[in-house]
Amino acid sequence: MAKKPLRIGLIGYGFMGRAHSNAFRKVSNFFASDHEPVLQAVCARNEEKVKEFAANWGYQSIETDWRKLIARDDIDVIDIAVPNNLHCEMAIAAAKAGKMILCEKPLAMDPKEAVKMVAAVEKAKVANMVWYNYRRCPAVTLAKQLIDEGRLGRIFHYRAKFLQDWTINPELPQGGAGLWRLDAKAAGSGVTGDLLAHCIDTSLWLNGGISSVSAVTETFIKERKHNLSGKVEKVVIDDACAFLARFNNGSLATFESTRYARGHKALYTFEINGENASISWDLHDLHRLQYFDHRDQGVVRGWRNIHVSDSDHPYMKNWWVPGLQIGYEHSFVHQVADFLKSLDTGKPAKPDFKDGLATDYVVDAVLKSAQSGKWLKVKQVK
Amino acid sequence: MAKKPLRIGLIGYGFMGRAHSNAFRKVSNFFASDHEPVLQAVCARNEEKVKEFAANWGYQSIETDWRKLIARDDIDVIDIAVPNNLHCEMAIAAAKAGKMILCEKPLAMDPKEAVKMVAAVEKAKVANMVWYNYRRCPAVTLAKQLIDEGRLGRIFHYRAKFLQDWTINPELPQGGAGLWRLDAKAAGSGVTGDLLAHCIDTSLWLNGGISSVSAVTETFIKERKHNLSGKVEKVVIDDACAFLARFNNGSLATFESTRYARGHKALYTFEINGENASISWDLHDLHRLQYFDHRDQGVVRGWRNIHVSDSDHPYMKNWWVPGLQIGYEHSFVHQVADFLKSLDTGKPAKPDFKDGLATDYVVDAVLKSAQSGKWLKVKQVK
Amino acid sequence: MAKKPLRIGLIGYGFMGRAHSNAFRKVSNFFASDHEPVLQAVCARNEEKVKEFAANWGYQSIETDWRKLIARDDIDVIDIAVPNNLHCEMAIAAAKAGKMILCEKPLAMDPKEAVKMVAAVEKAKVANMVWYNYRRCPAVTLAKQLIDEGRLGRIFHYRAKFLQDWTINPELPQGGAGLWRLDAKAAGSGVTGDLLAHCIDTSLWLNGGISSVSAVTETFIKERKHNLSGKVEKVVIDDACAFLARFNNGSLATFESTRYARGHKALYTFEINGENASISWDLHDLHRLQYFDHRDQGVVRGWRNIHVSDSDHPYMKNWWVPGLQIGYEHSFVHQVADFLKSLDTGKPAKPDFKDGLATDYVVDAVLKSAQSGKWLKVKQVK
Amino acid sequence: MAKKPLRIGLIGYGFMGRAHSNAFRKVSNFFASDHEPVLQAVCARNEEKVKEFAANWGYQSIETDWRKLIARDDIDVIDIAVPNNLHCEMAIAAAKAGKMILCEKPLAMDPKEAVKMVAAVEKAKVANMVWYNYRRCPAVTLAKQLIDEGRLGRIFHYRAKFLQDWTINPELPQGGAGLWRLDAKAAGSGVTGDLLAHCIDTSLWLNGGISSVSAVTETFIKERKHNLSGKVEKVVIDDACAFLARFNNGSLATFESTRYARGHKALYTFEINGENASISWDLHDLHRLQYFDHRDQGVVRGWRNIHVSDSDHPYMKNWWVPGLQIGYEHSFVHQVADFLKSLDTGKPAKPDFKDGLATDYVVDAVLKSAQSGKWLKVKQVK
Repeated sequence: MAKKPLRIGLIGYGFMGRAHSNAFRKVSNFFASDHEPVLQAVCARNEEKVKEFAANWGYQSIETDWRKLIARDDIDVIDIAVPNNLHCEMAIAAAKAGKMILCEKPLAMDPKEAVKMVAAVEKAKVANMVWYNYRRCPAVTLAKQLIDEGRLGRIFHYRAKFLQDWTINPELPQGGAGLWRLDAKAAGSGVTGDLLAHCIDTSLWLNGGISSVSAVTETFIKERKHNLSGKVEKVVIDDACAFLARFNNGSLATFESTRYARGHKALYTFEINGENASISWDLHDLHRLQYFDHRDQGVVRGWRNIHVSDSDHPYMKNWWVPGLQIGYEHSFVHQVADFLKSLDTGKPAKPDFKDGLATDYVVDAVLKSAQSGKWLKVKQVK
Repeated sequence: MAKKPLRIGLIGYGFMGRAHSNAFRKVSNFFASDHEPVLQAVCARNEEKVKEFAANWGYQSIETDWRKLIARDDIDVIDIAVPNNLHCEMAIAAAKAGKMILCEKPLAMDPKEAVKMVAAVEKAKVANMVWYNYRRCPAVTLAKQLIDEGRLGRIFHYRAKFLQDWTINPELPQGGAGLWRLDAKAAGSGVTGDLLAHCIDTSLWLNGGISSVSAVTETFIKERKHNLSGKVEKVVIDDACAFLARFNNGSLATFESTRYARGHKALYTFEINGENASISWDLHDLHRLQYFDHRDQGVVRGWRNIHVSDSDHPYMKNWWVPGLQIGYEHSFVHQVADFLKSLDTGKPAKPDFKDGLATDYVVDAVLKSAQSGKWLKVKQVK
Repeated sequence: MAKKPLRIGLIGYGFMGRAHSNAFRKVSNFFASDHEPVLQAVCARNEEKVKEFAANWGYQSIETDWRKLIARDDIDVIDIAVPNNLHCEMAIAAAKAGKMILCEKPLAMDPKEAVKMVAAVEKAKVANMVWYNYRRCPAVTLAKQLIDEGRLGRIFHYRAKFLQDWTINPELPQGGAGLWRLDAKAAGSGVTGDLLAHCIDTSLWLNGGISSVSAVTETFIKERKHNLSGKVEKVVIDDACAFLARFNNGSLATFESTRYARGHKALYTFEINGENASISWDLHDLHRLQYFDHRDQGVVRGWRNIHVSDSDHPYMKNWWVPGLQIGYEHSFVHQVADFLKSLDTGKPAKPDFKDGLATDYVVDAVLKSAQSGKWLKVKQVK
Repeated sequence: MAKKPLRIGLIGYGFMGRAHSNAFRKVSNFFASDHEPVLQAVCARNEEKVKEFAANWGYQSIETDWRKLIARDDIDVIDIAVPNNLHCEMAIAAAKAGKMILCEKPLAMDPKEAVKMVAAVEKAKVANMVWYNYRRCPAVTLAKQLIDEGRLGRIFHYRAKFLQDWTINPELPQGGAGLWRLDAKAAGSGVTGDLLAHCIDTSLWLNGGISSVSAVTETFIKERKHNLSGKVEKVVIDDACAFLARFNNGSLATFESTRYARGHKALYTFEINGENASISWDLHDLHRLQYFDHRDQGVVRGWRNIHVSDSDHPYMKNWWVPGLQIGYEHSFVHQVADFLKSLDTGKPAKPDFKDGLATDYVVDAVLKSAQSGKWLKVKQVK
């Protein structure tokens, strides 16, 4: 039976553009669906580079103006993989044009934008999803299953951190291609929107809503050369952010993120402690989950180091054989697979724009708490 | 050459009384000194039990009234290993009697008490030390050496936690022998004074003073049977505490402690990230230090898992041979060895009461911040 | 510039057929080359299933007779991904037809076959390679670099093992689709040719030739139902094999493989100890390399846990960003990338059939030593 | 109630003399018994040094002639902690004098000596024990318990290794104080009797008798200066030894030991794979046991990292509190505790001289197999 083509129009060809393209290309080889992504078009301002990207990945056409892309009849999905400051306008335009939307995270520059985006997709009734890909690492999905089965019991603690070390060098400039994440105008915030947003999204999924936060941020290197102006400019983004939180379920939490933790390239870790069991995970070894179950007999009780590669583990029966690990890129493939399944079944895929808004509310409270030095309540998505 | 006896008068025979006694008995077999501890007397109210303890450990005499112990001429050192609410009175009396004092941590119930204790030992000019024993785990001492040598460069981050899980069962009572740590009257606070005090002491030693904190505490089980009254009473202590901090050197920190982290028996960990190198440590494997040095050549750069058991590692030449680990109790032996050395050399041993006061100032600010929900400045020891 | 198509004719659609197909499809998105694989045809006896496989992976045509595939003019490369007993005949026919050949491991059922296959490709002067894919895990390639740079100094020890646990259940049958590895007629041997062959290939690459071996094998489950006959038949293959070895460079080695090591799904590990440095690796965490360098300063000497995900690590600049791991399948992509590069440059890719023969010589000596109970010399490839 | 004194006469004051003395001194503080070791006398030829040792450890008297020590009426136990070539004569003399005997491992230079020693203690009916201390690491004792409970089911594999790196430097001399283990005349063999003897003893205890072996040995540094002669002499001992083995229970085994494995100080590891469960242990982290149980539910199955520090773990209720680790020296304390218990109960402690002989039979077969290049049967103790 012929599959229904899902014609993709990708905006952006950076790191995320590559990760998405790879996922679109691979998913149908590994996951059954009635739908199949077709690499219809890719769009970016630099015509030469976008042509090269299209040739490399097999996109059938290019655009240099995203409005034209959105206007095309032969596009089903707009995939937004550009700096944060462009998400809102593009997403709203795409929704108005009746396109399905996949949007990179964080959803928006602030909750105000995000609220508009949610309204736009709800009004247009278009499928929408945010690329919080770490939910789809099989070990993380397994954690979700274990929690949903009630294995942990009452939750006491949640802790997450996302540690990197790539901006310690003060000679590193800010702004422009590849470095827009250091430019507040393009990124909105620093590690809070970039890294903590991941931690927050996962935590909301695993542990429910966050009610209040107390945060601190720091910018260790005060000035950097700006690639767009060519001048040394004040660094506006947060280099590091840590916050305390209370969840709606009564558990306490600590969150931390930085790009100044020497020795950690992308150490996203979380741990959740329940009365009966605990779980922890680490992006540096993403194919493993640590699980402790107090109900195990005392003398042989210990943290179980689970190699998440068996056919009964989430997503894994579609890949290789037990013991053979998958990597980072597969989380994107899984997200696309789940999106295709949502089209097959009519049951929306998550996280959607509303989930993205929920994370943006936390990010916003965190940044404002850091400014004010006060505990702040977090606005909840209705 | 005959060694000078150092006649010990121990007050208390609980867990810490045993750990100290073992240290006094062992130190001279392994560490050279002009001084040698002599187990002169042990004191506790229960005569039968204190006799049994004395017989087991070889104490030459007993007392059941600590004031009598302090009054004895044949005692050089008073070792205070009793609940926190007794430290102040005993220490001041001992100082007045001209005794050297070793005092369990935290130094006092609050800074007000601690200030008096510092004044008393300074006035009496008696040697004094607080049993923050983790400084003397060889791996922790090695961390201090590496930091003092400047290997880390500018410090960006400090994070510490002390996680336990022994009070999750709501049937566990509070108060009385073995459980006084759950009784606010005896302990002053819960995990903050018990566990975080260790984390704070180490951090002040390794990373300098803490300037301000924002904290949160929680008591998960609201009521427990009290062993002294026999009734179900409100639990006053903090079951968990987390705080954000800024150090005087500009680094950011997160601290967390709980007795509700399923799967962790005594997981004291710290990590410190500098511009050039990072260090981390874990009490569950206390004989190891993790060290990352960015100056290592790129392709072979990684966290070094150091088995701290070589003769050039702190304290280790006095023990066995490389590869053979020591354990928890040795940190106490090392503390006594360093105290003996301080008597040999006349150079005071650390941490002394002033250091204990510094930690109490942080503990106090943390508890008050948790109550007020505000960032608070930490008082500094002059 | 248009790339030269490299038209692939794949024989077999099992586990390896999938792994190869994925590699052919992905390689050009990530690795630059003048050549580009084209999925021209796939061949297998079951027409329905091979059509389904072709549709899933995008093969342009199918064959059900491998001789017809080899006879086709529009095929440049024959990729042999079928049970071991078919390798020899197919490879020789492909060579005669002037096709390049990629052949699954082990190269042949025995050295006699392998010698013929080497002769055939040498006579036909066709490019040839054996799918010992683990050489292309970046951490393993990095190990090779470090050894080639002379960092280890004189080598004293090599140890390797490949532990699995999937055949412990005595109800598991032998033979037929998916289980041909348990059937001596199809596989030649059990773990020796399947798993130890990988260990041996890596060791010859990293540590040079093996001169002599003393081996032991065991078949723990003596009889199993045979899927082809439907009857309970004697199990002929080796369930486990261990051997001692001397390398030509004077180092001692131990090798072990089994499918009866409960708790290990695919634990391929090797370690090599040199006078100055040591290296170890583990397939269960294939993106890491452990490295110990005795020349590091004593107090901070320890095994370095290298997360092989930086741009200066082998192959890694073509993937994502530091800290983001790749998985099992990427070793096949790298092998294809290197094969394409060999076509670009004219410098043959390795391991070729001669290397495959070298491993088969060791396998043969191991199996014969296990039968005779004697140390045996290993025949060397000239 | 007064305890019965157990008057110790120690011969030797080296590394083992210290380890034993520490155990004798500590045991009664931590383990209840009707008996109590008394440090009655220590004996060694160098009077000055033995006096110093006696003063340091509290031995009440000294001897410089071991025959005089054995002749003394006030000695109950002779503890032999001298080089291997002296064990036999001393033990037989002690037995004749009716003394209980604790003897360092390996029991003898060869089985011939060991047989005589067994005969001597059996004739004299004196308590006897060999210091294979690693049986008493709590994690190893726990392994024994789990195996005895039948948790592993049929055993398929045993593997052990003991890796060191302290003799790689060719300038290191052989022979004399501290280096007698490199001198074949004093030690009998190299790593085989020193390190593999430990591995063998543990394996016989955990997995039953070894039936046959095939071994290889190597001496990497052929000549070293000899401390006794002052000349460069041929090195006779084995620097490394590896062997394959079959156990009586049908399981296969690999054993390896070396002093040339860069990066490993004292890495004694063993692993045992059964049909239902597996266990592994590592001396570098001796307070942990790894346990895998296939009967755990599939999705949460993994190696359990057990921190062996709970009160229901072997020996641990006598020490501190959960999470606080003990170290190397405690294995000796436990051995003495068990010896005292054997005196309390009349049930002999293990391993006794017969067990020591069993290990010597394996050592002997290993060394002879390495010489002959043949599989050899191992003599069994009746």
